[in-house]
Amino acid sequence: MSRNLTKIGDAAYAKSEKINAELLTLTYGALVAQLVKDYEATDEINEQLEKMGYNIGQRIIDEFLAKSGAPRCGNFKESVETCAKVGFRMFLGVAAQTQDWTEAETEVTLAMDSAPLCNFVELPEQYAGLHYANLLCGVVRGSLEMVGYKVECAFAKDALMGDEANEIRVSLIEVINEQPPADDD
Amino acid sequence: MSRNLTKIGDAAYAKSEKINAELLTLTYGALVAQLVKDYEATDEINEQLEKMGYNIGQRIIDEFLAKSGAPRCGNFKESVETCAKVGFRMFLGVAAQTQDWTEAETEVTLAMDSAPLCNFVELPEQYAGLHYANLLCGVVRGSLEMVGYKVECAFAKDALMGDEANEIRVSLIEVINEQPPADDD
Repeated sequence: MSRNLTKIGDAAYAKSEKINAELLTLTYGALVAQLVKDYEATDEINEQLEKMGYNIGQRIIDEFLAKSGAPRCGNFKESVETCAKVGFRMFLGVAAQTQDWTEAETEVTLAMDSAPLCNFVELPEQYAGLHYANLLCGVVRGSLEMVGYKVECAFAKDALMGDEANEIRVSLIEVINEQPPADDD
Repeated sequence: MSRNLTKIGDAAYAKSEKINAELLTLTYGALVAQLVKDYEATDEINEQLEKMGYNIGQRIIDEFLAKSGAPRCGNFKESVETCAKVGFRMFLGVAAQTQDWTEAETEVTLAMDSAPLCNFVELPEQYAGLHYANLLCGVVRGSLEMVGYKVECAFAKDALMGDEANEIRVSLIEVINEQPPADDD
C-alpha cells in the first residue's frame, strides 16, 4: 500500500493549487512571533500553536477528502499512513515517513526529513522549549478527529532543539465513530 | 516590457518551491484571528497586519532578487511593474494588474482579480472596517523599501467590504537610494 500512497501523494501535490513556500514560512513566523508576544510561558505558546493547528486540521480535511484522490481508509493504521504519505505531501510538499508502529497499531512516529515551517529558523535561548512547528501536531490531531480517531500528537524529536530528526508521535486515544460501511457496488 | 514581465513571472512561479495554497490561507486566518483577540480596534488590527507584512516584505525581497530572474529595474515605475507582474505571481500565484499611473509616475493602483489570502473569508459585521489582506500592503511597502523606494500602500477597494475589486494604491514618498549604476560589461 505504501508505494501506492506515495504515488497518490505525488499526484495530489501536483494538482493542488500552490503558492510559494517562503510566504507560508514567513507568515507562520509572524504568527509564532505574535504568540511569543502574547504568552510568556513556552508551554502556553506550544499549546496555542497546537490548538490553532487543530482548527486548521478540522477544516483542511475537507480539501483533502475532496481533492487528494486517496483511497477510503478502513482503520486507524490506514488513516495515519494516508495522512503521512498523501496529506503531508499534498499540503507541505514533503511526505512523512511512518515508523515504530506498536504491535497493537495504535501508536506510530511520523518522521520528516525537513520541517517545512522551520526554514531558516533559529530559536533564541529563552525559547529552548518551544516546539516551533507545533501547529503540525494540531493539524494531524484535528484532521484525524474528523475521520473518527481521537489522538494525542506531540513532537518526540525536534531538530530545532538539537535533535537529529523531526518526529511526531501519534497515539490513538479513542475510535470516535465506527467507519461507515464501504459503498455497495 | 509588460508582456515580458508576465513571462518572467510565470517562469518564476513555475520554478519556485511551492506548497498548497489552502495551508497558507488557513495559517493566515489563524494569524488574523489572533490579532482580533489581541487588539480591539479594527484600525489597530489593520496596522499590525501591515507591520507584519512590512517585515515579511523586507525578507522576501531576498528570495525575489535571488530567484525571480527579473531584470534590473531603473526607476520606480519599473520596480512596481516588476513587483506586480513577477512578485505577486511568484509568491501568490496571481499577478496584479497595474492601472491609473499618475502622469508623474509616482502613484499607481495594483488590481487583483482574486485576493489569495481571502478565500472563503466572510467578515462579521463588527469587523466591517478590517482590511483582511492588509498584510499584502505591508509586503509591498517592505520590499519596495529594500530596493530604494519609500512608499505608502493601502487598500483602495476591498472585495470583502463589498467593493467590486481588490485594489491597492501605491504612492511614492521618497527615493531613498539612488540606484547603483548598471553593471559594466
